[in-house]
Amino acid sequence: MQKFANDPSNMVNESIRGFVKCYPDIVTYTESERVLKSTSAQDKNRVGVATGGGFGHDPAFIGYIGQNMLDTVAAGEIFMTPALEDLCIAFRHADTGQGVACLYGNYERDIACVEKAIEIVKKEGIIVKSVIANDDVALSDPDKRRGSAGEILMWKVGGAAASLGYGLDDVIRVAQKAVDNTKSISVGLASCIIPMVGQPNYLIETGTMEIGVGHHGTSSLDTCKLRTADATVDIMLDSILRDMPLNEGEEVAVLVSGLGNTMLMELHILFNRIYDVMQEKSIKIHRSYVGNYFTSLDMMGASISVMKLDDELKEMMDVPVYTAAFNHFHNKK
Amino acid sequence: MQKFANDPSNMVNESIRGFVKCYPDIVTYTESERVLKSTSAQDKNRVGVATGGGFGHDPAFIGYIGQNMLDTVAAGEIFMTPALEDLCIAFRHADTGQGVACLYGNYERDIACVEKAIEIVKKEGIIVKSVIANDDVALSDPDKRRGSAGEILMWKVGGAAASLGYGLDDVIRVAQKAVDNTKSISVGLASCIIPMVGQPNYLIETGTMEIGVGHHGTSSLDTCKLRTADATVDIMLDSILRDMPLNEGEEVAVLVSGLGNTMLMELHILFNRIYDVMQEKSIKIHRSYVGNYFTSLDMMGASISVMKLDDELKEMMDVPVYTAAFNHFHNKK
Repeated sequence: MQKFANDPSNMVNESIRGFVKCYPDIVTYTESERVLKSTSAQDKNRVGVATGGGFGHDPAFIGYIGQNMLDTVAAGEIFMTPALEDLCIAFRHADTGQGVACLYGNYERDIACVEKAIEIVKKEGIIVKSVIANDDVALSDPDKRRGSAGEILMWKVGGAAASLGYGLDDVIRVAQKAVDNTKSISVGLASCIIPMVGQPNYLIETGTMEIGVGHHGTSSLDTCKLRTADATVDIMLDSILRDMPLNEGEEVAVLVSGLGNTMLMELHILFNRIYDVMQEKSIKIHRSYVGNYFTSLDMMGASISVMKLDDELKEMMDVPVYTAAFNHFHNKK
Repeated sequence: MQKFANDPSNMVNESIRGFVKCYPDIVTYTESERVLKSTSAQDKNRVGVATGGGFGHDPAFIGYIGQNMLDTVAAGEIFMTPALEDLCIAFRHADTGQGVACLYGNYERDIACVEKAIEIVKKEGIIVKSVIANDDVALSDPDKRRGSAGEILMWKVGGAAASLGYGLDDVIRVAQKAVDNTKSISVGLASCIIPMVGQPNYLIETGTMEIGVGHHGTSSLDTCKLRTADATVDIMLDSILRDMPLNEGEEVAVLVSGLGNTMLMELHILFNRIYDVMQEKSIKIHRSYVGNYFTSLDMMGASISVMKLDDELKEMMDVPVYTAAFNHFHNKK
């Protein structure tokens, strides 16, 4: 395995340590090394925003901790649910007496663990309400749909609402609206290597690609010939727009994320086509993000997320944010 | 080739188009599609900061255009020198009557082209002075040393000086000081694929790594067994500190950049060790940057750059900056 590692089984811990040493102005430890909190989390008497999930999606999730976004994150092992106690710690540190919004993804084990943690801290007088992201349209059944890169937009919106002083129910309402208005789809060109395994999870034949691939190195089983970048974008946007039709004059936020081993150059080529398609449809891109925002270890491929905006969501997207992975101040489009 | 592309020979143009569409608030075209300028470049009566170089180092170079950093960039084909006329255009747009600082890397063809362009615009009354980065310590002869990720720190410092109203000679002086105080070294774990070639430039055997590898997919010929992340950092820091000894109490900026296909998780593991080594030596890391800042297409590997800081360089590093790839506002360490 051509990786910079000391002990493959300890990469998550060492990576988190390096992350905290790199961003002492943004994040700090809690009593658990697997639970990080924003350095500005505690000094605000407002709703807290927390999340938890498996590692391996760098810069998600810990990269989105910071001013006006996530207050606390509980990190699990690679692609694994965080520890129950770590979720409780994340809720406790996010709470300032106004309650906590837990914004996370639609994965069975995560849901079971978050719900247990909510019960535990409830006995301590901490109210936690949650929104479960299911933005990935790869699966037709909405209940089975996974959370993917769209979670970032949910975190952005929820964090903005909390920073504006919204009460818990309103933070939950706008975060849920963000999820309801966000659709994502991923295409894989090569699978990922889980460090403790040391070899690719499975093979995507050269010259083929997988539509609707997930974020955990499992095959979508929907393989087709590798298309041009433009044709690939068209397939991806079709599946998004089939699920969420957009009318002329509507505004959107677009997030294009590499899955790991895809060049930024390629992602801009994908966005170039997305922009043109949206323009043809007279849909205005209010904000756009292109980069490695939500990866799947070293997988090759990319995801496209589109969030339909109303005035409230636009306001939320425009709130300044300052985190390790995602920040903007005045880049109004 | 498992890449998102339409026409491999047109990837640079399409990528630049997507980039400009993504960041209309930060960059805009000049009369050449290969020369981009900052949206805030022209409205300041101050020294201009320009650069030029080959493509394939995303987010370098165009990602560093913006407020208080680069005003204009002339982009060549992948790993190729920009066109002479494009460099002239970059100089013309960077100039507001106070002269232009051209901050670029030590590559023979680039130097020849930049010097020609300087002569051409001189006849138009535009004064351009230059600093040539040679931060890569892989080669022992300083005259032969290449510019690498350290160029980003040079651009940061030069752009800050210009934004503070320094005259041309002073911008050149501090940018040269940034270069003189910055040493970099790269380690490669796998070579890159030049899209028009479609296959890896050469093979780095699994289980081995290349110390002092360059940014253009050519072998450093210095191959050794793949070490642990910590042992690799120690080898890299040794070669940097052998060249630029640091005394107790000194302060530095550290930039860890992936070369493309290396996970952010790994880069934080490298930084984790760098931080500990610096702490053992009682050297303070004033600012740290860990991410894909200066890549070599889809190469596997990473570079470490260390800049020794004095009060002036610290002041320059702390000036707020706002670009697509690199921005900070108040993250004082």
